[in-house]
Amino acid sequence: MNIENIVKKLPEYITEDRMKHCIGVMKTAAELAEKYKADRRKAEIAGLLHDVARDLELAQMVSLCADRVKNLNDYVKQNKLLLHSYAGRVLAERDFGIRDKEILSAIEKHTTGSNNMSLLEKIIFVSDYIEPSRSFRGVKKARKLAYSDLNSAMLYIYRSILIHLLREVRYVCVETLEGYNSILMEVKKVE
Amino acid sequence: MNIENIVKKLPEYITEDRMKHCIGVMKTAAELAEKYKADRRKAEIAGLLHDVARDLELAQMVSLCADRVKNLNDYVKQNKLLLHSYAGRVLAERDFGIRDKEILSAIEKHTTGSNNMSLLEKIIFVSDYIEPSRSFRGVKKARKLAYSDLNSAMLYIYRSILIHLLREVRYVCVETLEGYNSILMEVKKVE
Repeated sequence: MNIENIVKKLPEYITEDRMKHCIGVMKTAAELAEKYKADRRKAEIAGLLHDVARDLELAQMVSLCADRVKNLNDYVKQNKLLLHSYAGRVLAERDFGIRDKEILSAIEKHTTGSNNMSLLEKIIFVSDYIEPSRSFRGVKKARKLAYSDLNSAMLYIYRSILIHLLREVRYVCVETLEGYNSILMEVKKVE
Repeated sequence: MNIENIVKKLPEYITEDRMKHCIGVMKTAAELAEKYKADRRKAEIAGLLHDVARDLELAQMVSLCADRVKNLNDYVKQNKLLLHSYAGRVLAERDFGIRDKEILSAIEKHTTGSNNMSLLEKIIFVSDYIEPSRSFRGVKKARKLAYSDLNSAMLYIYRSILIHLLREVRYVCVETLEGYNSILMEVKKVE
């Protein structure tokens, strides 16, 4: 499915506000893809579709990723914020005909991150955090870093997410910590 | 080896300041063992010996836990703060004749923590953080919690350690995050 058709079909799945966010992520991802020489079209599609499952009910998310849910702990199983990424991957493939593994993986990892992320995965993860409609504390710094050094932006965003979750005494996915450690090693090696 | 003999032999391994800290952990661990009905003698021995390897050279630590080091990543392999707990377990068994698996495990886990910790492991982890000579930010609150609810103290200490490491852009062991998540689940279930 091409971008125009995805833009037409996507509002069947998500709210109007979410649509604005997804368009923002698409545009930011396109800019970052240009800057860091990634595939612009893949970045746009992954950006558009990353939150395709975000407004589903929990039961729908669980149903979409039933095989995967079996291996998750009780907390994650009931957490829409964590499940929507897995469910989104399934919907992107099933309903939007996306077969490209890189795009699907970028959708799947956009919330938690993971170790050894691909350039496209990093671009979607960062774009989701910094797209123009985002306005939380620290977003300006993340935005600035994103356009100067992608790994430094990743490190800053991981730290911000982790500290935020810990302050609020919330569950933290191991994937997010592994992503943080992994980028830390990449950044430190470069220094 | 009984406590008196350990106290005599321990200064061959650690500095004078460290010895004071270990005596402090022993005393605090004894108090917490009384309060939470753990084995007081085991708590004292684990408290005394937890830092037995803390003042060794890196090469000595690596040599003591060579089998384990093989499976560690490059960062942990060069990190005395992380290695001394594993090396300490080996020394406690080899040089102090400790055979009790609970004591050895409490020594091994005192720095990183882990999921599903035993009562003794929790007592040593908490005592290490709050013993009377400790004076960093947040220690008073941790101390107060330790004497009212051990799991709440664990949660507070995990959060403090994790936020501190993230603020300083340092590597974070997955075991520590797993310990945090594990205690979070325990505390939330009780509520």
